[in-house]
Amino acid sequence: MSKVTGYRATDRPGEVELVGLTRRDLRPDDVEVRISHCGVCHTDLHALSGSAAGRGGTPLVPGHEFVGEVVATGPAVTSFAVGDPVAVGNIVDSCGTCAMCVAGQENMCVEFPTLTYGGTDRVDGSTTLGGWSSSYVVREDFVYHRPPALDPAAVAPLMCAGVTVWEPLRVWGAGPGTRVGVVGLGGLGHLAVKLAVALGAEVTVFTRTADKAADARALGAHRVVLSTDEQDMAAAGESLDLVIDCVPGAHEVGPYLRTLALDGTLVVVGHLGEVRVDAMDLLRARRRLASSGSAGRARTQELLDFCGEHGVTADVETVPSAQVATALERLGRNDVRYRFTLDLRDLG
Amino acid sequence: MSKVTGYRATDRPGEVELVGLTRRDLRPDDVEVRISHCGVCHTDLHALSGSAAGRGGTPLVPGHEFVGEVVATGPAVTSFAVGDPVAVGNIVDSCGTCAMCVAGQENMCVEFPTLTYGGTDRVDGSTTLGGWSSSYVVREDFVYHRPPALDPAAVAPLMCAGVTVWEPLRVWGAGPGTRVGVVGLGGLGHLAVKLAVALGAEVTVFTRTADKAADARALGAHRVVLSTDEQDMAAAGESLDLVIDCVPGAHEVGPYLRTLALDGTLVVVGHLGEVRVDAMDLLRARRRLASSGSAGRARTQELLDFCGEHGVTADVETVPSAQVATALERLGRNDVRYRFTLDLRDLG
Repeated sequence: MSKVTGYRATDRPGEVELVGLTRRDLRPDDVEVRISHCGVCHTDLHALSGSAAGRGGTPLVPGHEFVGEVVATGPAVTSFAVGDPVAVGNIVDSCGTCAMCVAGQENMCVEFPTLTYGGTDRVDGSTTLGGWSSSYVVREDFVYHRPPALDPAAVAPLMCAGVTVWEPLRVWGAGPGTRVGVVGLGGLGHLAVKLAVALGAEVTVFTRTADKAADARALGAHRVVLSTDEQDMAAAGESLDLVIDCVPGAHEVGPYLRTLALDGTLVVVGHLGEVRVDAMDLLRARRRLASSGSAGRARTQELLDFCGEHGVTADVETVPSAQVATALERLGRNDVRYRFTLDLRDLG
Repeated sequence: MSKVTGYRATDRPGEVELVGLTRRDLRPDDVEVRISHCGVCHTDLHALSGSAAGRGGTPLVPGHEFVGEVVATGPAVTSFAVGDPVAVGNIVDSCGTCAMCVAGQENMCVEFPTLTYGGTDRVDGSTTLGGWSSSYVVREDFVYHRPPALDPAAVAPLMCAGVTVWEPLRVWGAGPGTRVGVVGLGGLGHLAVKLAVALGAEVTVFTRTADKAADARALGAHRVVLSTDEQDMAAAGESLDLVIDCVPGAHEVGPYLRTLALDGTLVVVGHLGEVRVDAMDLLRARRRLASSGSAGRARTQELLDFCGEHGVTADVETVPSAQVATALERLGRNDVRYRFTLDLRDLG
């Protein structure tokens, strides 16, 4: 067991405090990652404020999109060496034998993948503690090679926000000749725009406020549609092949469905509650409604490699981890473009 | 104008009466079809009972899945000759130039296709009168060659019920190695089973009543799942690639979504109102919800050719057209396995 430090939820909703933590001794296939940066995701905010997790019995240390360097390896590790620049995302283990794992979709493991925090370790049954910490110990199969030329702070959000939008872009074939729409320009949405543009797609951003149009274009969008303007929306009818809906909350999807052309797909990634559709909106143009979450191991590494080749990273505001409270408070009112990253090197 | 006879809605909801009608003189690209049989579709029932159409101003003559022989052709007709066995479905014209028509999806014509009855003729603006009649005049492009070896009465329902399920089976690639589920064993569902089996798929039927299991197997189903049995449904989880949902009314789709394996699709064809889904049911296994309606010209002819090759027809109960009132009444309480066909030769 090694002693490390990290930010753990306190008894007060939404608050964390710096405490001493322990990480397990390396198993044969483990690597230890010294963490330099970790993103602040909406999921972290929800975990801290919305639930009782972390208060009382189960300790809660958020953070599931982090980068750093390998500082130790178990004897059976073959893919990593000390000093390697690496990244870790929101899952750290899976059964490895179910149909989903065999299909390369460890994120959909039928026995449920082990989450990076709040999960249950498959070997010792302990609760996993996240990446808002000075280091992490993890099976090498769930560690990824990080392009060394990219700003590590801006790579961290690729590991959750990035893979969440990369998966549908790849599954539904975004690329040259395809027309991709993005709804919601936040942590997920801004990466969906950058990645779709880098893939060669023609990208439309839907925004509720005209003043975000310039931001959308700066991210590379070719067209901006004001979603509050019925005429603008009607003019965008049947013009897209794929829409990635990143809106974090319940909302009407019909208007976005109707922007899809023949056989187009709307993928909801921002909101995971009930979705209501009029079957006629699906029938007309034979559209599809879908959702996806995270990605498997191969597709996660593919994203990092792609970002290395194309120089794509998240737009981040990096703050010393000591300012985590401010970051949480500002994220709560969406005051960030587009993702906070904690610089955890201040933990020493 | 030629004088024909047909069944027109009266002032009393749900009732038709035999009256004299006129059909237009043949335009250059028209053919006249002497009708031998026409199916009785739920749509007919709705049109007659649910709306005021047919009463007061606009005449309503139902019938949009019919078969017969060509008895006359316009001078520009090239694909049909007098005596040809033919079939006509639920659309009889489209704009021909929009993106959907160009894509071979005349059924989704952006300017709306001309319906076989209750539609507005694109040339003279008259209201189209359906196939519960002794003859029909129609553009040759919307007439199909009917396999002469098949029982014409049993071919008629292929033109609406058949194409409605054929389209999703073909779009989503049902065939050897794919696992297809069918929900709702009525006019649409029984054809979905027969066609999916003929395509080589492994077919599962969901039924609410155990006594329909034998019927499902007689149609060729390889497996029957009792949808009212939670254990049976749970055991069917993640076991299918495509589910065709033919239930004619609002219902919960979650239980059927959860029977889909990775990247599977649920296609709602029986009910076109609001559909509610839990996005988590889509996210898990990256499932898709879709709908489709009818088919384009090429796919309609493809269905007839396929049925000719594989000997597939609808299971019909054929009654003299004079008994249409009985057929409507019994269809209203689902007392038919699986489709009524009117024999219109009694009109002389």
